[in-house]
Amino acid sequence: MWPLIPALSCSQLLRLCPSQCEPAPASQPAPPAAFPGHTASIRPEPPLSTMADQAFVTLATNDNYAKGALVLGQSLRDHNTTRKLVVLIGPHVADPCREALRSVFDEVCVVDLMDSGDVAHLALMKRPDLGVTFTKLHCWRLTQYTKCVFMDADTLVLSNIDELFERDELSAAPDPGWPDCFNSGVFVFKPSNETHENLLTFCGENGSFDGGDQGVLNSFFNTWSTADISKHLPFVYNLSSISIYSYLPAFKQYGHGAKVVHFLGKVKPWSHSYDAQKGEVKGHSQSSDQSQLQPDFLLQWWQLYTKSVVPLLQRAYGDAPFNTGFVQDSSTNEGEQQACSHAPPPPPRRLTPAERKQRWEEGQIDYLGEDSFANIERKLDSFLK
Amino acid sequence: MWPLIPALSCSQLLRLCPSQCEPAPASQPAPPAAFPGHTASIRPEPPLSTMADQAFVTLATNDNYAKGALVLGQSLRDHNTTRKLVVLIGPHVADPCREALRSVFDEVCVVDLMDSGDVAHLALMKRPDLGVTFTKLHCWRLTQYTKCVFMDADTLVLSNIDELFERDELSAAPDPGWPDCFNSGVFVFKPSNETHENLLTFCGENGSFDGGDQGVLNSFFNTWSTADISKHLPFVYNLSSISIYSYLPAFKQYGHGAKVVHFLGKVKPWSHSYDAQKGEVKGHSQSSDQSQLQPDFLLQWWQLYTKSVVPLLQRAYGDAPFNTGFVQDSSTNEGEQQACSHAPPPPPRRLTPAERKQRWEEGQIDYLGEDSFANIERKLDSFLK
Repeated sequence: MWPLIPALSCSQLLRLCPSQCEPAPASQPAPPAAFPGHTASIRPEPPLSTMADQAFVTLATNDNYAKGALVLGQSLRDHNTTRKLVVLIGPHVADPCREALRSVFDEVCVVDLMDSGDVAHLALMKRPDLGVTFTKLHCWRLTQYTKCVFMDADTLVLSNIDELFERDELSAAPDPGWPDCFNSGVFVFKPSNETHENLLTFCGENGSFDGGDQGVLNSFFNTWSTADISKHLPFVYNLSSISIYSYLPAFKQYGHGAKVVHFLGKVKPWSHSYDAQKGEVKGHSQSSDQSQLQPDFLLQWWQLYTKSVVPLLQRAYGDAPFNTGFVQDSSTNEGEQQACSHAPPPPPRRLTPAERKQRWEEGQIDYLGEDSFANIERKLDSFLK
Repeated sequence: MWPLIPALSCSQLLRLCPSQCEPAPASQPAPPAAFPGHTASIRPEPPLSTMADQAFVTLATNDNYAKGALVLGQSLRDHNTTRKLVVLIGPHVADPCREALRSVFDEVCVVDLMDSGDVAHLALMKRPDLGVTFTKLHCWRLTQYTKCVFMDADTLVLSNIDELFERDELSAAPDPGWPDCFNSGVFVFKPSNETHENLLTFCGENGSFDGGDQGVLNSFFNTWSTADISKHLPFVYNLSSISIYSYLPAFKQYGHGAKVVHFLGKVKPWSHSYDAQKGEVKGHSQSSDQSQLQPDFLLQWWQLYTKSVVPLLQRAYGDAPFNTGFVQDSSTNEGEQQACSHAPPPPPRRLTPAERKQRWEEGQIDYLGEDSFANIERKLDSFLK
């Protein structure tokens, strides 16, 4: 199963993967009229020259998060941001998703930790469990920008938020779970290779108290709760969808000013399915009373996805199947939640030893799965016994 | 049923109730040794003369909240506070509870809104639903103190927190439900009759967005989230017991510094019952794994209540029955949650019309219940039809 491991040193292993940064073409071709419902407009040029050195940045580690990133990016476009849009993607994001991302984002940057510098290698070897966190921290390397706003792919923008660029690093909104911590779903930062290396070193040495980027960032920027009120973004810039219910009177009082909703929790918008004909998210319905009281952010996400993102994915996938998340016609298949339009991709097949060997040699290392450091260590231990 | 209403003007009605402020005797008598387990120590004098003009303040609107206030007061004493302790009580708190409170607090102040100034009257007539809120706001009238820390009766102090008096009005910790709001369970304030009147006027005109004091105070002190970081108390000074579970990794990282735990939610510590022999709160048990990970604050509350508060109540009630909250001997009544030691008081009997008339004439108006403004208005309407 592991024929190559003893024959390669760690540094050799780590140099096998290619990396790629794919700036979008200067002018985005409008999607063909053959995709009904598509409304992508021609992107306006930034009105001020300084705007080009600032960017919104998000991260898509897989094809599902790519859908979220597409909705987020489109929501920023719809609200006429004057800043650049950048998406960091993991090496496993499928080509058609990358193509769709390129039609919304100014830059699509593949982050492959195997090819991102000695400090990243070292940190990853120490804490292989924090791979996704390291990928997110990569945003500090976007030094072609002087200031950025990072937004998780499970956020949705409800109005123009370009004023966030007036804030300094590290500005963020409080986390409702432990409000002396900031939530790392939306934060203002200043790209810097030095900060990036310091973050990785810190991360490798201290790990993350919550196993993710939020723990690392709160430990690193540890004066957020005590030093400077201007670095506290108003909660409406990172409104946890959970908070609507945890203190409903406050939501009714202040929620009308919501600017960014954050779909915290395990169930993401794309985890649901959607009846496009009825305009209903399956398993999620608000009474008319509730709808009058509070906006249905989940429905808004699906409406934007249906209108602006699905046409991009349809164009990119062509005849190949992909999972839109739509349920079949409800009049003929009441209650059925089978994805339609395009069939879902089959689950990944377990590779044969020969195929795994070939992938190793091609640099396609599944460093968070079967080829994780823990597995490698276990295998080495079995040889040494 | 309402024979007196048309015969009395509002201002006449509002002047019927007496008010009372009961400073505790200068030296507290030690409880008799006949109460085993009682550990109240002789209170040390404040080491600095300036300490006498600062106080912790709490509120007990009924006998249950009085239990909470007693535990809170005792926890402050146990951690050697150098400040005065004041409890505001509603007119319905029973005499034995008042007596127990006087043995822990320096001042027991009865707040009767019917006798607390024209502005309070006016506010109460406009918003009779906010009676408890108005009672809490009364703390601003404690102008014998230059600075105070208000603490809800459902809080428990875990270490000395006298450093809170270094903060200015209005300092408070974020509310986890909507973290741009502060939680009004713990706040630093500066007594002032002018602020009190402004608060009442504001309250009468604007009401409260959440129906309680937290809504009023957040609307009144509406720059808390944006103006001055020093007015953000660390979350560990008002740690919601709910937050332990909502973001457990943060609690594990920062919870060791917990100074005040706040039993938010409808179920209060005194709503549970306690098996004193087993040392278990009924219907609440932590596994040994959980106990190693996080302290059991609810158990701590009951241990302090059992050790230091029950003896005071036993002395005050004498032979009269009261509800300790203890369950009967578990070896003979497994699983039974009947209160023992002292039987619970019978539920309040509905008064006859003649009794109600007499109470009216004695000024004993149930202004939040049967004699509420809404009921009076309904009765007046029925006469006018």
